[in-house]
Amino acid sequence: MSALITLTTDFGLADGYVAAMKAVILGINPEAKLVDICHNIEPQSIRQAAFVLSTAYSFFPKKTVHLVVVDPGVGSERQAIILKTPSASFVAPDNGVLSYAIKPHLAEPPDEEAGPASETGLVKVALKPEVEAVAITNTRFFRSPVSPTFHGRDILAPVAALLSLGLPPIQFGQPLSSVAMFPLPQPDRGADGSLVGHVLHVDNFGNLITDIKGDDLAGAEDVTIEVGGRLISGLARTYAEGRGLLAVIGGSGHLEVALRDASAASLLDARIGDEVIVRQVPKAK
Amino acid sequence: MSALITLTTDFGLADGYVAAMKAVILGINPEAKLVDICHNIEPQSIRQAAFVLSTAYSFFPKKTVHLVVVDPGVGSERQAIILKTPSASFVAPDNGVLSYAIKPHLAEPPDEEAGPASETGLVKVALKPEVEAVAITNTRFFRSPVSPTFHGRDILAPVAALLSLGLPPIQFGQPLSSVAMFPLPQPDRGADGSLVGHVLHVDNFGNLITDIKGDDLAGAEDVTIEVGGRLISGLARTYAEGRGLLAVIGGSGHLEVALRDASAASLLDARIGDEVIVRQVPKAK
Amino acid sequence: MSALITLTTDFGLADGYVAAMKAVILGINPEAKLVDICHNIEPQSIRQAAFVLSTAYSFFPKKTVHLVVVDPGVGSERQAIILKTPSASFVAPDNGVLSYAIKPHLAEPPDEEAGPASETGLVKVALKPEVEAVAITNTRFFRSPVSPTFHGRDILAPVAALLSLGLPPIQFGQPLSSVAMFPLPQPDRGADGSLVGHVLHVDNFGNLITDIKGDDLAGAEDVTIEVGGRLISGLARTYAEGRGLLAVIGGSGHLEVALRDASAASLLDARIGDEVIVRQVPKAK
Repeated sequence: MSALITLTTDFGLADGYVAAMKAVILGINPEAKLVDICHNIEPQSIRQAAFVLSTAYSFFPKKTVHLVVVDPGVGSERQAIILKTPSASFVAPDNGVLSYAIKPHLAEPPDEEAGPASETGLVKVALKPEVEAVAITNTRFFRSPVSPTFHGRDILAPVAALLSLGLPPIQFGQPLSSVAMFPLPQPDRGADGSLVGHVLHVDNFGNLITDIKGDDLAGAEDVTIEVGGRLISGLARTYAEGRGLLAVIGGSGHLEVALRDASAASLLDARIGDEVIVRQVPKAK
Repeated sequence: MSALITLTTDFGLADGYVAAMKAVILGINPEAKLVDICHNIEPQSIRQAAFVLSTAYSFFPKKTVHLVVVDPGVGSERQAIILKTPSASFVAPDNGVLSYAIKPHLAEPPDEEAGPASETGLVKVALKPEVEAVAITNTRFFRSPVSPTFHGRDILAPVAALLSLGLPPIQFGQPLSSVAMFPLPQPDRGADGSLVGHVLHVDNFGNLITDIKGDDLAGAEDVTIEVGGRLISGLARTYAEGRGLLAVIGGSGHLEVALRDASAASLLDARIGDEVIVRQVPKAK
Repeated sequence: MSALITLTTDFGLADGYVAAMKAVILGINPEAKLVDICHNIEPQSIRQAAFVLSTAYSFFPKKTVHLVVVDPGVGSERQAIILKTPSASFVAPDNGVLSYAIKPHLAEPPDEEAGPASETGLVKVALKPEVEAVAITNTRFFRSPVSPTFHGRDILAPVAALLSLGLPPIQFGQPLSSVAMFPLPQPDRGADGSLVGHVLHVDNFGNLITDIKGDDLAGAEDVTIEVGGRLISGLARTYAEGRGLLAVIGGSGHLEVALRDASAASLLDARIGDEVIVRQVPKAK
């Protein structure tokens, strides 16, 4: 069965770890088609992995299995889970790495007033009935012995391979009524009506990708964007407009700050979490 | 249809952008076989992408589709094109990134006396009738909506996938009578008969790959190679000859300057564009 | 024939060299499934390649062909070989890069008293009859012409592709009675009964992977681990135990020194070859 399996890890590209997972998968489903999403996630960075996954997973064909192994708690009490949505399956530790993937399927918005439920910043959320959530507990499908330090290879890879062969999630363990997510960064509305967003990600070009979505700016005609003490006038349509800093709605639908043919992140010495403020320009009378 | 599609981009390996393109391709042609040529092209470096592509594309089987997305002008007036040669198809922005791929198919040599036709250093060249060149304008095959900042995913990837399914290029837009290329770097002939070449590329080993081809040196028996103030006597046949700097005809047919088990680029602090001079040694009487 | 071929090289990911090899393979066996093990081996580092290969190859399905091109002696007198074991085939230069893969198949342990047989640190070893070893000499299967600097593309890639199609190794050249390996690093037993191991590899997480195997510690209950002037008490089961430095048996079965959510290598400024000493804690009376 020529199913698609994607892989997202923080294993880097200088070790044999990713290949070991692929080997296990292909031993179980020799026809699986493997596509790397990213293996250069900053070690242990659950949030970065969650975001990078969110920029790619939704473009894959239906029934694709997404295997995500960014797993600082490997071998400890954190659970490994399967999420099966109407369009894809996810196999990952239940540590928030699926937060963006979970978002469209929340039974209700997370109670943000309540604040994070735990030291890890994670909250437990219930999902719509359209999603099947299962804790991976059935050891029958694990490699044997399981290395307590490499569940990616010994548990998650075999589960992903078997899912790609059509096994139903419930075969792998107990249904879950809730899973972990971290509250997604969101722009705040300032008292003056400004939109105060944050840098979510710095990409390979040094573009600053923010948590402000194009939809948040719908109808906004004349805006200024403030970032790192600089002011940008108006939204560009492409990276090739103008010469200096520019703001644009990027391919993932987020507001980005970019610098033509250079790195906005370097120019601004910007970091994840930095504020990006969008203000409506008052109309001249 | 198990067609081959290669990918060459400057997207790097720390984002989800390459995967998003692959996702789109596999959604259209699930049987496509994807091979990465390189995603670590220096951001916006059209010339580097053109060269790296040239060291790999010609080894692929006939009918391979080569998708190249190094596209600083994405969303602006630059066109996206298809080139179909007797041995392969290329899908890329018309910004010179196919310059080496175009070279064997030029209707006539570019008029170098005329100098570059534009600020970008690009000239318009006509191709032999064996090549079909098409401007991608038929929006019917694009993803909808098209992100003005990510044509790779929304336009070029679907076109590459459909070409791999056998659609003829003309379905995608208007035939073109000329395409853009930059004049390829070439060695100059010095007044004393020396050959003055340039460093084209520094590879992973720190080897300096020059624009002097093995053919340029055919018949040359005793030569010296001058680079970065050093003199190399004669051509080696392999990297394993000698201990210091050596010159060798590398796997791409270009003269290379290398250092056994170390980086010639570091030793010489060499950069792209640096001169490499080959001189015939006068015969002793 | 949908055979698996893995690739391990020191070519890096910024050139077209890996893609050129894949192109050649797919031209010969269009159905081959290609899996990258690693291309970021330190240039010319035969030992690192041998180790990284060892952490991945054994997880692949039977009959997988492993192509390994870390080949400082390319074009010189070193031979290229095929090793066919009961579970896999290897195509590589005969320069020690298969040392870990050879280990389980040695006819007898290498004579360590004798010391290295050559300047390169390599010894010639005989293999069990279950292994077929062949020197690749039959030029009929090479690309033509062969670049003396790129045997990976012109010799090893076609051989790997043809092996994946089922050609028997003996077609490619002469049987060999011995092949080259370097003596594998091993822990020494100290006079006081301690185990003196060495750092073999530093992985993407900064974990120090040592030549001490979990089996070497079987039955050891209370141990201390000394590394870089620090003392670690006892073995952890996972990376998530404790907050400081910890020692754990990692996924490859080796003793590793790790630092929770950070790099042990950076903290300790550790390097390959550094000593890691395991001592039994005397029982209290």
